[in-house]
Amino acid sequence: MEPFRLLVSFEEALETLMRHCRPVDGSESVDISSACGRVVSTDVVAQQDVPPFDRAAMDGYAVVASDTFPATQQPVVLEVTGRLHAGEAPSTEVTPGTCVQVATGAPLPPGADAVVMVEFTEEQDGKVSVTRPVYPGANVSRAGEDIDRGQVVLRSGTYLTPARVGVLAALGMTSVTVFRRPEVAVVPTGREVVPPGRPLRPGQVFDVNSFTLEAVLRSNGAVVRRLPVVTDEYGALRSAVESAAQSCDMVVLSGGSSVGEKDLLVGVIEELGTVHFHGVQVKPGKPTLFGTVGDTPVLGMPGYPTSCLSNAYMFLLPAVRKMARLPPRHEHRIVVPLAKRYVSSSGRKQFLTVRVSDGHAYPAYKHSGAITSMSDADGYVVLPVNLDVIEEGEEVEVVMFDQ
Amino acid sequence: MEPFRLLVSFEEALETLMRHCRPVDGSESVDISSACGRVVSTDVVAQQDVPPFDRAAMDGYAVVASDTFPATQQPVVLEVTGRLHAGEAPSTEVTPGTCVQVATGAPLPPGADAVVMVEFTEEQDGKVSVTRPVYPGANVSRAGEDIDRGQVVLRSGTYLTPARVGVLAALGMTSVTVFRRPEVAVVPTGREVVPPGRPLRPGQVFDVNSFTLEAVLRSNGAVVRRLPVVTDEYGALRSAVESAAQSCDMVVLSGGSSVGEKDLLVGVIEELGTVHFHGVQVKPGKPTLFGTVGDTPVLGMPGYPTSCLSNAYMFLLPAVRKMARLPPRHEHRIVVPLAKRYVSSSGRKQFLTVRVSDGHAYPAYKHSGAITSMSDADGYVVLPVNLDVIEEGEEVEVVMFDQ
Repeated sequence: MEPFRLLVSFEEALETLMRHCRPVDGSESVDISSACGRVVSTDVVAQQDVPPFDRAAMDGYAVVASDTFPATQQPVVLEVTGRLHAGEAPSTEVTPGTCVQVATGAPLPPGADAVVMVEFTEEQDGKVSVTRPVYPGANVSRAGEDIDRGQVVLRSGTYLTPARVGVLAALGMTSVTVFRRPEVAVVPTGREVVPPGRPLRPGQVFDVNSFTLEAVLRSNGAVVRRLPVVTDEYGALRSAVESAAQSCDMVVLSGGSSVGEKDLLVGVIEELGTVHFHGVQVKPGKPTLFGTVGDTPVLGMPGYPTSCLSNAYMFLLPAVRKMARLPPRHEHRIVVPLAKRYVSSSGRKQFLTVRVSDGHAYPAYKHSGAITSMSDADGYVVLPVNLDVIEEGEEVEVVMFDQ
Repeated sequence: MEPFRLLVSFEEALETLMRHCRPVDGSESVDISSACGRVVSTDVVAQQDVPPFDRAAMDGYAVVASDTFPATQQPVVLEVTGRLHAGEAPSTEVTPGTCVQVATGAPLPPGADAVVMVEFTEEQDGKVSVTRPVYPGANVSRAGEDIDRGQVVLRSGTYLTPARVGVLAALGMTSVTVFRRPEVAVVPTGREVVPPGRPLRPGQVFDVNSFTLEAVLRSNGAVVRRLPVVTDEYGALRSAVESAAQSCDMVVLSGGSSVGEKDLLVGVIEELGTVHFHGVQVKPGKPTLFGTVGDTPVLGMPGYPTSCLSNAYMFLLPAVRKMARLPPRHEHRIVVPLAKRYVSSSGRKQFLTVRVSDGHAYPAYKHSGAITSMSDADGYVVLPVNLDVIEEGEEVEVVMFDQ
């Protein structure tokens, strides 16, 4: 059991990790009703115009615009030769001196080139008097005005928002080709770790990290494969890492927060691939290890629940979003005064969890072994490496946890 | 076809809607691996201590603290009588003059009351020399220190973050009781509306709104029941609304953007329940109707895709989050200059969609019929009722769409 030798800075660790996490290739077809939040993997080309035909943009009367020009002086009277609802095909042609009553969304009848809004008309005995002139094209949505047939409407790499799902529907598509989600293996390690639901024997604790990691991974675009607990035995660990690295896009191990146990994983990764860093200048979360086996990133997280989850937000979240080709997470930040003096002497960049109440931030951090350091918190404050003290009442920027 | 008579303000409309949307009762049990994002419906009481036993918080040696006090002067030598890994039950008692080597997470052996960190020791030939004294309790996590058995750890109404899922796992729970999700019926209406995938006949368009509404609803805690298109026929509409209101927690209709068609829905709701407002001073989204049938809120959305989706963000999103007992959505806002002069003369509160590029906001709004007004946008700017012009370069606050 020997202590860490060379800690890397948070920034260097993150940069190294991001460099080795590449966006996944490969795609799959999904139904548009579950496509929101996915990323388009092939340019979507419009197979038809939207709208598919010239249509009335307002309730009113489809007219020959030039018929209405005299209405600047006095009302123009036109003969109503038909009525057209949305969804009906036009049967009557509009000729000079006539008009067809149209509902919003109804196709523009042949011969007409404008719609007079119902507000500027008065109908009586089959005749309508028009009180305002319209120009050609007034209150008409032209075919293809929204989307042109043949146009690339969504490029490969586009994130699907509700509106973009709407574009797919507007084109009549029922499915869309999107990038597959990265598959991440989550491997709990440690002889003391037991899955929830099993009885605890003396000296044993429940596996927490697999579930917190799974929650963070799933809400950031990954498919999670939770694997059984691996005891701290070299052969078992090596075979678990080797097979997970072959079949998944990323491997995240948790546990063995001590140097002694972590050394096992260092050995395994050195044997199977390359260790890129071991030990980061952050608090909590120092005993973090990163390597690659083949092209697969392997992240060794601290065993302590708070250290592990804190690192999941700092390292795993941006990495998996990059692999899933998702845009960076929008962080919700608020600036509030610190409710009580806080002394930090770690000499590491610190992620201090806080509870926000009555417009103040209260430090919620107990120690890295306490899951309640995170679960009682509303967000965290990042304290720089060289900061020793924040006074009561000093303003801090809190990054809020997702809701 | 008569125009709207009395428009209500946006604020009044939202207040009315929120008042009639009540948080759902009823709960269900979910596996902890899918519990993130759900809301606890019964206080969770800890059935055991976390940690379950006194344990070493550091790698080192479990000692009788008072043995180490002389180490202020010179190293203290103790006999190593055992070694204990995490997950092992202690077999050796620590008596004065002796110690047991312990790994982080290992149970504290009986007799010991502190742990000396490995960094302040040197072991040779079964004896360890301790170079720093420790106080009783040093580097020990006490049983129940994180969570006490019998304690209410998560109150009913608590939103489950990854950390709170971790709390459930730490207690050995495999499932948790959460509020059920509100079930929302989405009913497209209009003779011109055809589900994507079917062939379009002249005058027909594809159903867009069911899919955009579903996307917004699903990402805000609802279960969505998409119903078949209802033609604008009074009897069919009444029976669809009546049965959806009986079986779902909320009914959202879309379509019939014109006053004429909307009147049908007004009539149906007046017959089955109460109309609370019809017509809102917003752009886009004016032709919005809200009523209740029994206790069930019924929202009639404009048929135009942009109006419908804009209203989904403004009205439906906060309403459904309240019903699902979710905290208000964190809005990500940025302040940037407007890239070009914008003239608004609607006399209504306006939600102007914008694209954000090169640190500027470009108006993306074409008209309410164009889905690309939304799909090409990154967010929206809210313009007050009384605002006429924003000059180029003036700063605007953009609420970004979710990513």
